Amino acid sequence: RRSYNITLLPGDGIGPEVVSVAKDVLSLAASHEGIEFKFREMPVGGSALDATGVPLPEATLTASKESDAVLLGAIGGYKWDANEKHLKPETGLLQLRAGLGVFANLRPATVLPQLVNSSTLKKEVAEGVDIMVVRELTGGIYFGKPRGFGTNDKGEDIGFNTEVYSSSEIDRIARLAFEVARKRHSRLCSVDKANVLEASMLWRKRVMAIATEFPDVELSHMYVDNAAMQLIRHPKQFDTIVTNNIFGDILSDEASMLTGSIGMLPSASVGESGPGLFEPIHGSAPDIAGQDKANPLATVLSAAMLLRYGLGEENAAKRIEDAVIETLNRGFRTGDLFSAGTTLVGCKRMGEEVLKCV
Amino acid sequence: RRSYNITLLPGDGIGPEVVSVAKDVLSLAASHEGIEFKFREMPVGGSALDATGVPLPEATLTASKESDAVLLGAIGGYKWDANEKHLKPETGLLQLRAGLGVFANLRPATVLPQLVNSSTLKKEVAEGVDIMVVRELTGGIYFGKPRGFGTNDKGEDIGFNTEVYSSSEIDRIARLAFEVARKRHSRLCSVDKANVLEASMLWRKRVMAIATEFPDVELSHMYVDNAAMQLIRHPKQFDTIVTNNIFGDILSDEASMLTGSIGMLPSASVGESGPGLFEPIHGSAPDIAGQDKANPLATVLSAAMLLRYGLGEENAAKRIEDAVIETLNRGFRTGDLFSAGTTLVGCKRMGEEVLKCV
Ligand SMILES: CC(C)[C@H](C(=O)O)[C@@H](O)C(=O)O
Ligand SMILES: CC(C)[C@H](C(=O)O)[C@@H](O)C(=O)O
Repeated sequence: RRSYNITLLPGDGIGPEVVSVAKDVLSLAASHEGIEFKFREMPVGGSALDATGVPLPEATLTASKESDAVLLGAIGGYKWDANEKHLKPETGLLQLRAGLGVFANLRPATVLPQLVNSSTLKKEVAEGVDIMVVRELTGGIYFGKPRGFGTNDKGEDIGFNTEVYSSSEIDRIARLAFEVARKRHSRLCSVDKANVLEASMLWRKRVMAIATEFPDVELSHMYVDNAAMQLIRHPKQFDTIVTNNIFGDILSDEASMLTGSIGMLPSASVGESGPGLFEPIHGSAPDIAGQDKANPLATVLSAAMLLRYGLGEENAAKRIEDAVIETLNRGFRTGDLFSAGTTLVGCKRMGEEVLKCV
Repeated sequence: RRSYNITLLPGDGIGPEVVSVAKDVLSLAASHEGIEFKFREMPVGGSALDATGVPLPEATLTASKESDAVLLGAIGGYKWDANEKHLKPETGLLQLRAGLGVFANLRPATVLPQLVNSSTLKKEVAEGVDIMVVRELTGGIYFGKPRGFGTNDKGEDIGFNTEVYSSSEIDRIARLAFEVARKRHSRLCSVDKANVLEASMLWRKRVMAIATEFPDVELSHMYVDNAAMQLIRHPKQFDTIVTNNIFGDILSDEASMLTGSIGMLPSASVGESGPGLFEPIHGSAPDIAGQDKANPLATVLSAAMLLRYGLGEENAAKRIEDAVIETLNRGFRTGDLFSAGTTLVGCKRMGEEVLKCV
């Protein structure tokens, strides 16, 4: 019997509801495959702020680092929006990513045949879309120094940040993206703004250098503004996309929304070694928190990514993904995806229906 | 008879073809309104590089500054893509924007009823979309210092750029955006990443301060990743958007593509005083250059913006816009927008048909 320690970080808003469902699904799928889990729940984000005064308590980071994988719900809420930077829930998430060294964020945007009508795109444009965005997650303008506030030579206030990448930071995310592309359709599109930014020029140069190690993967380059267009014009042209932290933040959200079902989309953040961080791409949705309305499937699918990318437990991962598809085929939908002819269920009930298929 | 000096910058690729059409339309519309134009054509971008060794010759900047308005075609092409930064066509464009001090880029994304089917969005999502993106154009990461290449403490190569805004830079673009919103539906959405970036925190603070001068305009704030999603989910929620240089680059292109007809979209770049810069949002399309296939209407509509925002000649502007609509209603389409039941025409012929309606 294989045994793993999983840190659960329910976080804020709908986080606790969806993590609770995902935990049950994870346990059942694992037990079918002879896997045992020990779960440990720790605070992060706004709820950690309220309880301990900081958005990422030491104990949470330590427990996360010592475990085999981390499953996060969601963080943030109106309540903490006006907080100073070091007291924002978001800062806790950034500290967690940096602390775990998870430099690669994998975000699939897949249009499921069952949900193609949820997309605001025309059916013929949306169907078959299957994009993986590989976003650099621990560098660039999110972490670059110097940053802060100051005064310019006219005595005016200024706010500033630094977009900076080193060759090794680019090399490792590029290699990982080429590996990911190789397991998909072997086409990688690197997105940058190399016609304007030096940080992007180095990005492009290093991606081209790493490409020589992957002659079987077709590499292309695209400027970020054009990529934002092309995702809408003809999303099927993309297989795997690799890009920096801030462009990845924007483009992966854009790509997700093409599917029309962001309540379904998981993500995996992984590093060189050590535990990965798995979380749904949606936010904490404070307006529906605690009302049993949330769609837990993005977190359930994040648990599948945890099994696959975090623990190498492919069978258990597949078991969960198949159970989700079957549950959709059986017609169950939470409010975000409900349409005539389907059965409206709440968060808990959706979890129960998935459990029946695991 | 009012008389104006117009600098024409045809640039590269399809630039010369589309500017030539726009010039004729501009002249005719003006003559109907008792306006006289003196045109002066100057080199910029790749063609300037080839002819003079720099992407923005002194004489071009001087002529532009001394004129009443500048009409640009497009710049760039594969030929110069590998050039060093200071020898890129794009650098010439950035120098022109900075040299003219045109800190505000107005980019409408309007779905015309005649072209609603060109959008990849479902008809009910696309129809009625009418967004104005106001992009800050002479600050932020495009121009911030320090920038360049270097070595970090591990001896690795780094590339870096600085995202920086001062309060006066934010105040002036915010004021201009509030004015624009006021002339539209009085709703302004400011887009930033204030949950992570200090430059965005100052942005938000100053936009909120300027808002007190415009109590009649409804202000909202949105994070850039969410904005990238919302533009696809429900674009009609937006009236006027204001954002920084790089986010504006990405979001204005995304918004344009929602219309499905980027060959139709103009832009205006204006400053405190001095001549404005007017250009289509599309690129130089080197693959179809010189083949009489380009859609000249984005440049023709940029000429209308030149009349309205650059010279205050509303009647002549309206005359051009009406002529474009009438030409579409008469069924003429260039290849980018052709569909069964419409009449396929080339760039020149499209110009002739517009001239008939001016
Ligand atoms: C909450 C925020 C800091 C975060 C980010 O910008 O990385 C989020 O948008 C994401 O994409 O995970
Ligand atoms: C060509 C390039 C430098 C330019 C920009 O990034 O500003 C273009 O994308 C634009 O939007 O006008």
